[in-house]
Amino acid sequence: MSEFLSDSALSPLDLPVAADVFTAAERLTGIVHRTPLIHSSALNAQLGAEIYFKCEHLQKVGAFKARGAANALFHLPPGTTRVATHSSGNHGAALAWAAALRGLRCTVVMPENAPDAKKAAVAGYGADIVPCAPTLAARESTLADVVEKTGAHIVPPFDDPRIIAGQGTVAQEVIGQCRALGFTPDLLVAPVGGGGLLAGVGLAVSALAPQVKVLGAEPEGADDAHRSFRGGKRVTEQTPDTIADGLRTTLGERNFAVIRESVNDIVTVSEQNIVTALSLLWGRTKQLVEPSAATGLAAVLEHAARFRGKRAVIVLTGGNMDLAAVAAIAAGN
Amino acid sequence: MSEFLSDSALSPLDLPVAADVFTAAERLTGIVHRTPLIHSSALNAQLGAEIYFKCEHLQKVGAFKARGAANALFHLPPGTTRVATHSSGNHGAALAWAAALRGLRCTVVMPENAPDAKKAAVAGYGADIVPCAPTLAARESTLADVVEKTGAHIVPPFDDPRIIAGQGTVAQEVIGQCRALGFTPDLLVAPVGGGGLLAGVGLAVSALAPQVKVLGAEPEGADDAHRSFRGGKRVTEQTPDTIADGLRTTLGERNFAVIRESVNDIVTVSEQNIVTALSLLWGRTKQLVEPSAATGLAAVLEHAARFRGKRAVIVLTGGNMDLAAVAAIAAGN
Repeated sequence: MSEFLSDSALSPLDLPVAADVFTAAERLTGIVHRTPLIHSSALNAQLGAEIYFKCEHLQKVGAFKARGAANALFHLPPGTTRVATHSSGNHGAALAWAAALRGLRCTVVMPENAPDAKKAAVAGYGADIVPCAPTLAARESTLADVVEKTGAHIVPPFDDPRIIAGQGTVAQEVIGQCRALGFTPDLLVAPVGGGGLLAGVGLAVSALAPQVKVLGAEPEGADDAHRSFRGGKRVTEQTPDTIADGLRTTLGERNFAVIRESVNDIVTVSEQNIVTALSLLWGRTKQLVEPSAATGLAAVLEHAARFRGKRAVIVLTGGNMDLAAVAAIAAGN
Repeated sequence: MSEFLSDSALSPLDLPVAADVFTAAERLTGIVHRTPLIHSSALNAQLGAEIYFKCEHLQKVGAFKARGAANALFHLPPGTTRVATHSSGNHGAALAWAAALRGLRCTVVMPENAPDAKKAAVAGYGADIVPCAPTLAARESTLADVVEKTGAHIVPPFDDPRIIAGQGTVAQEVIGQCRALGFTPDLLVAPVGGGGLLAGVGLAVSALAPQVKVLGAEPEGADDAHRSFRGGKRVTEQTPDTIADGLRTTLGERNFAVIRESVNDIVTVSEQNIVTALSLLWGRTKQLVEPSAATGLAAVLEHAARFRGKRAVIVLTGGNMDLAAVAAIAAGN
């Protein structure tokens, strides 16, 4: 790792640029999966568009978060032996996985009410779990305690240039995979929560294929990124209400700065369209993705005119869900 | 098509040989998908074996049945304009799909209580559906009526050399895909219902890679193939009781003849292990396969000593399930 630090270490305070994505892609080769791009002829006939799905639910730890976490660990302060974060979702598992790969200790502060499946994943990668009350304040103060006691280096889930650059490697792969298939897509759609993925995708695409329109897709019940983008000012207050649990976070500061420069639009989607998209994905592609991952296809359903006759790639962001959630969704609850 | 008929048409009464599988594989190129082989590092660590899954749930019509149906249509009596079958499951959809591709009319006799999703699939491929009472006698007499009225040629679901040869192309692909990855598997496992898939796999493997052990996996609640294989005499009576709805059929005559010559063993699996295997497949591979498809992994769970330290390929046979079934299984019913 030390040979990289000398020439291109990103500070957590930097704004990332496209070159950081390309460097991340080189470093992550052989560490993360080059996930497949799939399509369904039946679904495309139904939609009147040519839709490809980038299968990040088949990524290490079952989510694109593996990319950002693994990339962040190439940019640690010298002498770091322990990393830490707070997470109720995929970032905690991703950081635990990446830390184990590099022989680093890892602590994940998790709210007591986090799903057992998520706790088991984090513990399974050998990280220490520190429980806390299920509030943002408790998560942050507990993490501060961990840092004070252990000297751990914090790797945040999205508002961090190393994370943004890592997530952007998805788009670099997509552009290359489409070219190998003989085309450049008209649109690339990524769900947006904290904005790590969308910012990274925007950076990569604006450098590699600026003719491709990058669209963020956000649940209307957690539309802070949409309002921030349209209003030109980051909205920091919201009360999220959506089945897409991975997208309930608020857009990060660096994420907003990158997104407003590199993304074409952020559209919202209804809960009904998220659920319809999810059942289409399960039924047509047989891919058991989580609700957040269906937000991109929901955008095709809700904004059909923008996609008709077009080629679009949609990022399926993750597939981590316990069976109770699967049962509730399949039963229509 | 006529150029094929002159030199290698299979009569529905023949016993197929390995060369029929190889001919089928040539003809099916570009018609069916070469489905991917996937694996899960986490699952392999848990099982102490190196398991690869052949993704036939990603096949055309969502099941390996597309292979046999498409192959059968290369072996029709001259002048055939309509084909017919009776089916409550994937074979009806596969025949409807294959017939539409070749511009043939198709009639599928379906029991009135067949799931709406299956009826919609058959109708979606443009076939005529003739409803009947939900008994084998009613299915057969209704199909006989259809044949008398329309002159349709019957394509049976499994006890047919054209079907067996078509299903066997799965194994030819598997052996090639494993060689491309640098190995020959120790075992190849296929679920067994009527025995179309298992017979075809046995034929292909015994010719291409006889050192590979071919294993059938059958629910203990529908264990006629197991009893037939162990007893050396085909069992034709059973009262199936299993969640694996695709495996409730009784082993065919030609299927048994081929299987006893080319398959190493048929093992049974409990309902509990089918459900456990299904939840492992959903959770670890994110592939929404149907219960029948989980029977192969259930065999690894139930007969662990036969797989420990070995490389095995398991055929995931299909992924066609309505959401109500998904909900019931995920909820533990």
